[in-house]
Amino acid sequence: MGPIEFAVDYTSSNTKARLGRLSTPHGVIRTPVFMPVGTQATVKAMSPRELVEVGAEIVLANTYHLYLRPGHDLVSRAGGLHGFMAWDRSILTDSGGFQVFSLGEMRKISEEGVTFRSHLDGSAHFISPEISMEIQMALGADIAMVFDECAPYPADYSYTKDSMEMTSRWARRCLAAHNRADQALFGIVQGGMYADLRKASADDLVSLDFPGYGIGGLSVGEPKGLMYEMLEVTVPRLPRDKPRYLMGVGSPDCLLEGVMRGIDMFDCVLPTRIARHGSVFTRNGTLTVRNAAFSQDFAPLDPGCDCYTCQNFSRAYIRHLLRSGEILGVRLTTIHNLRFLIRLMEEIRASIAEDALPKLRDSFLEQYNEGPQ
Amino acid sequence: MGPIEFAVDYTSSNTKARLGRLSTPHGVIRTPVFMPVGTQATVKAMSPRELVEVGAEIVLANTYHLYLRPGHDLVSRAGGLHGFMAWDRSILTDSGGFQVFSLGEMRKISEEGVTFRSHLDGSAHFISPEISMEIQMALGADIAMVFDECAPYPADYSYTKDSMEMTSRWARRCLAAHNRADQALFGIVQGGMYADLRKASADDLVSLDFPGYGIGGLSVGEPKGLMYEMLEVTVPRLPRDKPRYLMGVGSPDCLLEGVMRGIDMFDCVLPTRIARHGSVFTRNGTLTVRNAAFSQDFAPLDPGCDCYTCQNFSRAYIRHLLRSGEILGVRLTTIHNLRFLIRLMEEIRASIAEDALPKLRDSFLEQYNEGPQ
Repeated sequence: MGPIEFAVDYTSSNTKARLGRLSTPHGVIRTPVFMPVGTQATVKAMSPRELVEVGAEIVLANTYHLYLRPGHDLVSRAGGLHGFMAWDRSILTDSGGFQVFSLGEMRKISEEGVTFRSHLDGSAHFISPEISMEIQMALGADIAMVFDECAPYPADYSYTKDSMEMTSRWARRCLAAHNRADQALFGIVQGGMYADLRKASADDLVSLDFPGYGIGGLSVGEPKGLMYEMLEVTVPRLPRDKPRYLMGVGSPDCLLEGVMRGIDMFDCVLPTRIARHGSVFTRNGTLTVRNAAFSQDFAPLDPGCDCYTCQNFSRAYIRHLLRSGEILGVRLTTIHNLRFLIRLMEEIRASIAEDALPKLRDSFLEQYNEGPQ
Repeated sequence: MGPIEFAVDYTSSNTKARLGRLSTPHGVIRTPVFMPVGTQATVKAMSPRELVEVGAEIVLANTYHLYLRPGHDLVSRAGGLHGFMAWDRSILTDSGGFQVFSLGEMRKISEEGVTFRSHLDGSAHFISPEISMEIQMALGADIAMVFDECAPYPADYSYTKDSMEMTSRWARRCLAAHNRADQALFGIVQGGMYADLRKASADDLVSLDFPGYGIGGLSVGEPKGLMYEMLEVTVPRLPRDKPRYLMGVGSPDCLLEGVMRGIDMFDCVLPTRIARHGSVFTRNGTLTVRNAAFSQDFAPLDPGCDCYTCQNFSRAYIRHLLRSGEILGVRLTTIHNLRFLIRLMEEIRASIAEDALPKLRDSFLEQYNEGPQ
C-alpha cells in the first residue's frame, strides 16, 4: 500500500463525474477538490487557520519558487513544508517544470534537464528530473509531480510529439529517482492539443502505474472547447481507481465542465490573484468591488455567501480598504474568492450524489453569465 | 450620567498608578489600557476578530483620514465606525488636530480653525472646532477628542502660551458644539515643555468638567525625561475620578513610566508600524526578523509569548515571508507586536494590584535593554 489511497465512492450515471476520498498522511480529501495555490509556502494573504475555515483540505506549493527561496534544504530542516508553513493538512508540490518553462528566453531545455536563470537575481540553475525529485522529497509534500515539459500553445505537431515523448522518458527517470515512502508521485499527461498524442501520453504513463495522474499543458491560451475535447480523449484512458488532476484550472465554468468529464482535482491562482486586484466571484459573475459603483453599497460581496467576509463586511467598506491600500481589503476579497470556489465544489459534490450535476452546471452558469441584476 | 463611566478600583500605594474600569456604550475597558491605532477604520493588517484575540478592548481611528476618505457622511450611513468596520468594542477618535498640524507647509492656523490641503489630492479643506465635532459625531466613536493645536518641539514660550490658550478657547467651542448623548468628549491638555503652561492648561480644562483628559503635545521629539517631568506636573492637577490619556505614546518603557505617573490610556502606531518593517518586540528588546541572522532560526519571535504567531510560526518562516513580500509576514509580526504591548499592560495591571509595579518596571527594562543573549 502506497502513501495515498483513493476510493471512488460513487460514479454519476449521467456524467463522468465521481465522488471520491483521497487519503494522504495528512488527512482525507473529498474529491472533486479545488486546491488553493501557496506559491511561496503561503496562500497569498491567508493564514493556515483561515484556509481551514474556508474549507481547504489540500494546498499546492511551487517547487521552483521554494527551491530558489528559501531553499529546499532550509524547508527540510524546518520539518518540511508542513512544519515550515504550519499547515497540518495535505500539500501537493508541482515539479517546477511549468514555472521554469514559463521563463521563456531565460531557460534552455535539453534531454538532461533545463538550464535557467532565476527571476529573482539572474543566477544560473539547472533542474533535471532527478533534481526535481530531490527538491520535492526535501519539501516533503504528500503528493509530488513528475518533472515534465509543458509545450506552449500553439505548438506544431512535431514539437509537441518530441516534447511529450521526452516528458515520458523524464517520468521514468522521476520514478527511478523518487524514493520517499510517505510521498506519492503523480505522472503528468502531455500532448498539447493533439488527440493522438494525448492518448499516447496517457497510455504510456498508465503503463508506469502512477498512483495519480496530472493532465498538464491545458488552460495555456487555447479555447475552452479545445481543452474539453482534450479531456474527453484523455480521461477515459486513465484508470478509474486513480485520481485525475487538471493542472492550473480554476474558473467556475471550467471546474463544472472538468468535473463532468471525470476530473477529481484542480488548482489555480485565479481566486487569489483577482482578489488582490479587487475582483470577486459572485453568483452573478465577477464584480470589481474597487469600482466607484460600490462606494455606497452596504450589501455583502455576495449575498448568501457564508464566508467571514460576507458575514461581516460591506462592499463599501471593502472598497474603502482597497482604495486606501489597506491589507485587510485584499485579505477579505481573498477569503471570499477561495470560499466561493470551495463552496462551489461542495455543491458539485452534493449534486453528483443526486445525479444532478448537469442541472447545477446549467443553472449556475445561467446566473453567472447573466451578470449583476 | 454621561455616556461613559470610569471607576478607579485601586490606587497603588507606592506609585501614582491605578486600576480602573472605563465603561462605554460598547463595553468595559480595563485600565491602564493600550489602544491599537486604526487610522483608516482598520488596524493595519489586522481583522476585527484578531484584535479581539490579542486582547484589544478599544481602538483609535483618525478623524482627518476618515474625513478625507471615505468621508464621515458615508461612515455615518454605514452605521458609524462600529458598523462600517465591523468592530463592536469601543472606539476613540482623535480630533484631526494633530494630523492637520503635521501637514506643515500645507496648513494655515487661525483663531477660527485650520485651512489645509489634503495629502491625497492637494484639495483645500477647513476644519474648525465645530467641524471637528460634526465629523466626530458622524463617525460615532464612544469617545471623541476636542480639536486642539499641538505645538511643535521645540517651540518658544510665547508661541506655546498662545497656542495653549487658543486650545482652551477651542475646547469651549467643542463643548458647545458637541451634542451626541452616546459619545463622551475628552479635553486635551497642552502647554509644550513648560510646567507653568501645562498647569494652567490642566486647571482651565478641569474647570470645564470633561469626562476624561488627553495629554497632548508630548512624545514629539523631546527627551523622555522631559516628557516624564511634564506628566509629573500635569497629572496631579487632573481629577482622580476621570481617565487620563497620554496621546501617541506606546514604547514599552514609556508605557511603564506613564502608568507609574498616573496615566490610564495610551495609543501609538509604533507596534503596527515597526511590524510592517519587519521589527518585533521581544522581552530582550526589538528584533529585526528580516535580518539574515534569523534565516535558520526555528524559534518563535519571542519564546514565552502566547500569541498566534509565536504559537505556530518560526523566525525563519516569518523572515522568508517578509523577504518574499508575502502579506502573511506583516500580518504575523503585527499580531505579535500588538499582543506584546497588550500583554505588557496585563502584567502592569496585575503588578499594580500587588503594589509591585516598580519591580516590574525594573526587571522588564533590565532584560529589555540588555538585548538578545
